[in-house]
Amino acid sequence: EELLGKPIFRYGQMEKENQIGAATGLAYTTVGGDTLSIEVSHYPGKGKLTLTGKLGDVMRESAQAAFSYIRSRAEELGIQQDFHEKYDIHIHVPEGATPKDGPSAGITMATALVSALSNRAVKKEVAMTGEITLRGRVLPIGGLKEKTLSAHRAGITTIIFPEDNKKDLDDIPESVRNELTFIPVNHLDQVLKHALVEEKNESNKR
Amino acid sequence: EELLGKPIFRYGQMEKENQIGAATGLAYTTVGGDTLSIEVSHYPGKGKLTLTGKLGDVMRESAQAAFSYIRSRAEELGIQQDFHEKYDIHIHVPEGATPKDGPSAGITMATALVSALSNRAVKKEVAMTGEITLRGRVLPIGGLKEKTLSAHRAGITTIIFPEDNKKDLDDIPESVRNELTFIPVNHLDQVLKHALVEEKNESNKR
Amino acid sequence: EELLGKPIFRYGQMEKENQIGAATGLAYTTVGGDTLSIEVSHYPGKGKLTLTGKLGDVMRESAQAAFSYIRSRAEELGIQQDFHEKYDIHIHVPEGATPKDGPSAGITMATALVSALSNRAVKKEVAMTGEITLRGRVLPIGGLKEKTLSAHRAGITTIIFPEDNKKDLDDIPESVRNELTFIPVNHLDQVLKHALVEEKNESNKR
Amino acid sequence: EELLGKPIFRYGQMEKENQIGAATGLAYTTVGGDTLSIEVSHYPGKGKLTLTGKLGDVMRESAQAAFSYIRSRAEELGIQQDFHEKYDIHIHVPEGATPKDGPSAGITMATALVSALSNRAVKKEVAMTGEITLRGRVLPIGGLKEKTLSAHRAGITTIIFPEDNKKDLDDIPESVRNELTFIPVNHLDQVLKHALVEEKNESNKR
Amino acid sequence: EELLGKPIFRYGQMEKENQIGAATGLAYTTVGGDTLSIEVSHYPGKGKLTLTGKLGDVMRESAQAAFSYIRSRAEELGIQQDFHEKYDIHIHVPEGATPKDGPSAGITMATALVSALSNRAVKKEVAMTGEITLRGRVLPIGGLKEKTLSAHRAGITTIIFPEDNKKDLDDIPESVRNELTFIPVNHLDQVLKHALVEEKNESNKR
Amino acid sequence: EELLGKPIFRYGQMEKENQIGAATGLAYTTVGGDTLSIEVSHYPGKGKLTLTGKLGDVMRESAQAAFSYIRSRAEELGIQQDFHEKYDIHIHVPEGATPKDGPSAGITMATALVSALSNRAVKKEVAMTGEITLRGRVLPIGGLKEKTLSAHRAGITTIIFPEDNKKDLDDIPESVRNELTFIPVNHLDQVLKHALVEEKNESNKR
Ligand SMILES: [Ca+2]
Ligand SMILES: [Ca+2]
Ligand SMILES: [Ca+2]
Ligand SMILES: [Ca+2]
Ligand SMILES: [Ca+2]
Ligand SMILES: [Ca+2]
Ligand SMILES: [Ca+2]
Ligand SMILES: [Ca+2]
Ligand SMILES: [Ca+2]
Ligand SMILES: [Ca+2]
Ligand SMILES: [Ca+2]
Ligand SMILES: [Ca+2]
Repeated sequence: EELLGKPIFRYGQMEKENQIGAATGLAYTTVGGDTLSIEVSHYPGKGKLTLTGKLGDVMRESAQAAFSYIRSRAEELGIQQDFHEKYDIHIHVPEGATPKDGPSAGITMATALVSALSNRAVKKEVAMTGEITLRGRVLPIGGLKEKTLSAHRAGITTIIFPEDNKKDLDDIPESVRNELTFIPVNHLDQVLKHALVEEKNESNKR
Repeated sequence: EELLGKPIFRYGQMEKENQIGAATGLAYTTVGGDTLSIEVSHYPGKGKLTLTGKLGDVMRESAQAAFSYIRSRAEELGIQQDFHEKYDIHIHVPEGATPKDGPSAGITMATALVSALSNRAVKKEVAMTGEITLRGRVLPIGGLKEKTLSAHRAGITTIIFPEDNKKDLDDIPESVRNELTFIPVNHLDQVLKHALVEEKNESNKR
Repeated sequence: EELLGKPIFRYGQMEKENQIGAATGLAYTTVGGDTLSIEVSHYPGKGKLTLTGKLGDVMRESAQAAFSYIRSRAEELGIQQDFHEKYDIHIHVPEGATPKDGPSAGITMATALVSALSNRAVKKEVAMTGEITLRGRVLPIGGLKEKTLSAHRAGITTIIFPEDNKKDLDDIPESVRNELTFIPVNHLDQVLKHALVEEKNESNKR
Repeated sequence: EELLGKPIFRYGQMEKENQIGAATGLAYTTVGGDTLSIEVSHYPGKGKLTLTGKLGDVMRESAQAAFSYIRSRAEELGIQQDFHEKYDIHIHVPEGATPKDGPSAGITMATALVSALSNRAVKKEVAMTGEITLRGRVLPIGGLKEKTLSAHRAGITTIIFPEDNKKDLDDIPESVRNELTFIPVNHLDQVLKHALVEEKNESNKR
Repeated sequence: EELLGKPIFRYGQMEKENQIGAATGLAYTTVGGDTLSIEVSHYPGKGKLTLTGKLGDVMRESAQAAFSYIRSRAEELGIQQDFHEKYDIHIHVPEGATPKDGPSAGITMATALVSALSNRAVKKEVAMTGEITLRGRVLPIGGLKEKTLSAHRAGITTIIFPEDNKKDLDDIPESVRNELTFIPVNHLDQVLKHALVEEKNESNKR
Repeated sequence: EELLGKPIFRYGQMEKENQIGAATGLAYTTVGGDTLSIEVSHYPGKGKLTLTGKLGDVMRESAQAAFSYIRSRAEELGIQQDFHEKYDIHIHVPEGATPKDGPSAGITMATALVSALSNRAVKKEVAMTGEITLRGRVLPIGGLKEKTLSAHRAGITTIIFPEDNKKDLDDIPESVRNELTFIPVNHLDQVLKHALVEEKNESNKR
């Protein structure tokens, strides 16, 4: 008796509202692309980081790199310096039966983390893809074309992507390209500038 | 010398009383559906979460997501803010020799947890199925037809299921459908509203 | 050079005295049944639970379920509320080279734990079998016939078994059945009522 | 480049002096028997138990059972009640490249532990074999004949063995049997009575 | 659905600025050499060392050796004696989907660690390769030719390498050799002297 | 892309100076012998023992036995009684890509540990081989001939070896034997007496 059937495949849709603690990433598979939500929750605790959603080792390490970058830059990012002592943090990628891996969700995980910890919303019309390094640099990824098509289908209007992938833009059909805004980035600072809504909703206290 | 024979298969039956700390989920297997109980126990401790019942990785992660959602929303859910520091919590799915996996017990585990921690009973006539995300969203699942048939056989009268599975309702024989109440949901708040009895049995102190 | 020969097979025998911290379970194997002792020891410590005796994962989880039930009901069971902070507990199943698995020793482990922690003896003439859930419920098991025959051979006179296995009683030869008392149960409370000697030997202090 | 050649085989020899913290066990292999030393060391620490010597899982669990029995009976055994809070303990079985397994070194490990912790010497002329349970019971083992022959060859004059193995004594050549004293036991109390020298060498303080 | 495509291969480029907490190493693969960045981040914590970037066991142990050397020589290296109690440290090697292993990044990891913890920048024009020991010694490595060619292509002008690899210099094409400065070393002190900029940028406080 | 090429083979050479915290062992492989350095580093910490250098399980256990012997005899060895509470200790065997295993480095690890913790230098002209037990006994090892030849080639002049290997001395070519001093030992006390320089370089404070 095994409860698990095949994972249900469903295409992602743009969020209906700007979200605090969730950002939209882009996945690339053998059968095409898809959007995926990265959710971050935090609550009083002792600094434990939990990662769920059937994530492979590379994706887990990517989350750790994003987390470390944020810890080392907490102050500049509008996050309490001692958040790691006061909260436990959980990063989850829904559709929990679908295996996920690779470094390209790095900047999405970083954005969701900053959003949750600084209480600033992520713009619902933005999706993003890119590896993050410990210094906040953004490295190139694969499958930009397929990822972009899936974002377009989901209703997304702005794509944040690694500057080193600029050469891949001309592979995207012009009809789709014309309906999207592309923002090339090489550092997380740029990602956050374009992905987070400007004013803070409320103070950073919880 | 090996003590383990084949797991005993038995069909679930509706509980005889409303239960605190237990909820009825629905399983989908290659040979049909079955109900399954999710039991939650808590006792003075230090916030350790134990999961038993031969649960696969996806189901364990699903439990963690449910748990994190509840920790981040404790106050709104009528649960002591610091419960995670004062109690150890154990989630068990009986028939311990039967392997179980998949994300579809997510909302059942969340409901059993809220029931146990807020001391509110779960209605005995309700069964439910649905993946839960870190934001409390309810995602679609597979096997709604088989799950519904098994719930009906067990004496259940109300099925809580993901709104995105509405399209699967017409696969269920009309004779069964007419004897059941179907409650489509897209957030755990709706699940709890329909699954928990309204008045608290007693105060939330233990 | 390998010190391990084949495990020595020996049939269990009824204890010569009522035991505190040990109960008699029933095992079911491809070559027949056997009794087995479950031993529990506790000593000043910090609440660590150790499980030994070449136990499989299902049997370990079963022990955890038994332990959690007892922690959540300590007071009603005549056990110090804070025993989990003051003692380490060890459950061992002798004949350490013989692999053992399955959920059917659940109520035996629970009984041995309650006996040890409440300082009440287990009746030597009683053997038992049944899965335990987190709520103390007793679920059906396999091999009741073979288990009963081995108990009879060991000198046992009373069998505690799951109510849901009543249908299996008629498989047991009448000659054996007539010499045994069968006690069907559906909750651990009933198990303890019949397995533990009534008066406490001494106070629950150690 | 691999530093490990074949393990060096050497037959054990009786100790030249009575030892504190070491006892002589008996091993049974496909090519015959051998004596083996069990060494116990303790030093200021926090109760950690370390096991080395390429020991298999069954032998490790056997050591844990021996350790738990001693913790639960510390006072009666002349050991400081709180030794587990003040010392780390290490059990090592030399000839570290030779794999060892099985439960039959249980009483030897228990004896070495009691010797180390109570500061009482083990008689050099004694070797022993037997599984130990959590209640200190001694269960039968395999290979008594081969074990006895190896003890005899090593210069040992007294064999402590499980009462349930009495039936195996007549397999031992009479010439060897006549030169040895055999002490059948069914509880560790008997083992310790015969294996430890009577007077304490010095007080139990370290 | 698997998000991971093939890792993106890209040749490293010299940093545009001197970096604090990052140093340039040299990798040797079956298809040639490449430069690789070693990034180090630290932030208030309790001395935990995290290693990411799909690193094999040998590379992880190499990082531990580098870390231990630095802890044992903190004072001489201009690092706070108690840094291991006040900070968590993360070493990451970007291009997180590419597996990396071997001891030859030892001195690069050590240099990046010293740079981060002493707040001294690493010269951007320097790349290095060499195993480090616990005493700070530098041991020879393989693939010096391929590593050098890749460094040259990346714009690097100075190569720090193990003295014991001097014999491999004549395998490097003269045209390349003439454009590079080679610094043979046998101890980390020499590495740091040549790789770190001389003056401290600011005080060692953060 | 895999950074690891074949491990670089290099023959060991005698140290140029007496070393504190490093001792020379002897390895035996299918293609002959080699010397190997055992390095020990310690720094303020909490008693954690780290082992690196691609060490197999038997070699790790051997290190633990050496460590326990030293902890139990700290005072007699001129080491602070509470060193295990104040320092973390790291044992590393360089040439980190080369797998190493077996118990024969036991006395070398013990010697390097005592040297580091008592601040006494190891004589550079001494190499050693032998298994150590928890009581400090020295057991025989394999490959004495090959080990001795490699020590001779490295410039070593004194070999410390297990007394039980005396019978292997006549396998060593007389020309080599005449240029070496052989010190047979059966206890670590003898090893330390011959391997450590007599006067302490400075006090045991760090
Ligand atoms: Ca999807
Ligand atoms: Ca292109
Ligand atoms: Ca069932
Ligand atoms: Ca349909
Ligand atoms: Ca048996
Ligand atoms: Ca029947
Ligand atoms: Ca031997
Ligand atoms: Ca016989
Ligand atoms: Ca690259
Ligand atoms: Ca050359
Ligand atoms: Ca070498
Ligand atoms: Ca010879």
